[in-house]
This record gives sequence, C-alpha cells and structure tokens, in this order.
Amino acid sequence: MRASASTAILVTGHGQFASGLVSALELIMGPQTNLMAVDFPGTDTATELTEHLTSAMASLSTADQVAVFCDLRGGSPFNVATSLASDRDDVAVLFGVNLPTLMEFIGRRSRAAEVETLSTAAIAAGRDGLGRFALTTAQADDEGDWA
Amino acid sequence: MRASASTAILVTGHGQFASGLVSALELIMGPQTNLMAVDFPGTDTATELTEHLTSAMASLSTADQVAVFCDLRGGSPFNVATSLASDRDDVAVLFGVNLPTLMEFIGRRSRAAEVETLSTAAIAAGRDGLGRFALTTAQADDEGDWA
Repeated sequence: MRASASTAILVTGHGQFASGLVSALELIMGPQTNLMAVDFPGTDTATELTEHLTSAMASLSTADQVAVFCDLRGGSPFNVATSLASDRDDVAVLFGVNLPTLMEFIGRRSRAAEVETLSTAAIAAGRDGLGRFALTTAQADDEGDWA
Repeated sequence: MRASASTAILVTGHGQFASGLVSALELIMGPQTNLMAVDFPGTDTATELTEHLTSAMASLSTADQVAVFCDLRGGSPFNVATSLASDRDDVAVLFGVNLPTLMEFIGRRSRAAEVETLSTAAIAAGRDGLGRFALTTAQADDEGDWA
C-alpha cells in the first residue's frame, strides 16, 4: 500500500442506517467524493446485498484502499463486507460506527495515510465521542462531562 | 425516579441519521413502543427542530423517564436536546450513539432501571461494539479480534 494512498469509504447497514449516517455527515462536512452508502432494507435478500456491495466496491476501485463502515459486528452487512474484504489486503472493515468515527476518518483521509492508521484514529475518536451529557458537576461522570 | 420507571427513547440527529438508526434497530429487534426518531434535515431551521423535539418529548410524556440519543456532541440536535433536558431531572442525553448503544439500551429497558443506569450500560456496550475487523491473528489488534 502506497504511503500516498487515496482512500474510499463505503458505509453499509440494516435499514436506512447507511444513507442516514452519510446524510448527517454531508450536512455537517459538505458533499464528499469517494463516499458511498449501501442500504440493506428489509425487502432485500442477502444475495441482493452482496450484489450491491460488490458493485459499490468495484465503482470505488479507482481508490487505492477502501474502508467499509458497518452498523454492527454481525448481521448481513458486516458478514458480506468481511467476506468481500477477505480476498483483499487493501480493505478495512469497521463495525459499530457512529458519526464521530466517520467524521474523524474523513477529516484525516486527505493526509493519505494507510487505512489501518486512519481506522485506528477514527475508532478512538468514535469511542471518545460517545457518552452522556451531564448538566452539573454533581451529575457529571466520566461519560459526559461538558465544559 | 421510581425503581419501576418506564423509559422512552427519542433519537435525533442531522439529516436522516435518526430515522436511519431507528430503521436498522427495528429491522433487527422488531417494532418498538416508546421509541421516536426526529430528523433535522438541511431544510429545517433550528427553531423548527426545537418545535419537533418539544412535541416529541411531550408525546412521550406517559413514560417516567426519557433518554435522548444524539448523533454528535455539539450541533443543533444535541444543543436543543440538552436545552430541553436542562429543565428536567428525568431526561438523559447521550451523544455519538451507534447501533450497539441503542440495542443495549432497548434490551435492558424492560428491567425498568433508572435512566442513568441504562445509559451507562448502553454506552459501555456502544464503545465495546465499535472496532475493526481483523481477519487473521497476524492482523488482529485490540480493536477488532473476531473469533
């Protein structure tokens, strides 16, 4: 993998998770290139999902590496993504993603780092960006302090 | 807050984040009661969002307590949610939520615990459920081991 690698992002999940997450990201950070959402609505079969993910992955093939963002560890979107990734060393699969994970990844990818490096930073930001708001010092806990 | 408290969940976020996350949850766990999504599309103003969240909160008022799930710490959905919660001691606001957070919260809420207890468990599950898939032992890291 080149140090100057370009990185595409494919988001997938049950229902409209993927298109919903991407809509939030683009509302905040503006339209993005090399970012695709593949939904898995209840009306689709796993075979159709595989076709849609394979097609999306092929359309992103101009990028040097791909990060697949899944809603959940387990379930068809994750299972198909990991199956497709197993044939390639330029694809990373993240699971349980939230908006801070995606924002961090996109904020960093122009630095052209390897997908593993980007993923590690994005996951750390995602975990750090998940918590509970505490209004007062008395209510504050480690999860959600807010200055 | 009663030990036998019933708990409603309100999901909100930019774009279609909220409806997307709820669609994924209900595809996996089935239709839920006392669960609402309030989207904040780019065409809405913050005033309209405040009206929608206030209205949703009122419609959930038959529950003893409410957990508001936000896409992000900061931004209009989070800011309005924390503003509405500041008047009440029966509302918790979570931010940066992912699907594992919501699944854990819903799986536990029938136990009728206090919203703080449910939130702490859900956030822990959300952080634990966010990671990177590693195909082989050689590639494995702390983020994404998969047996």
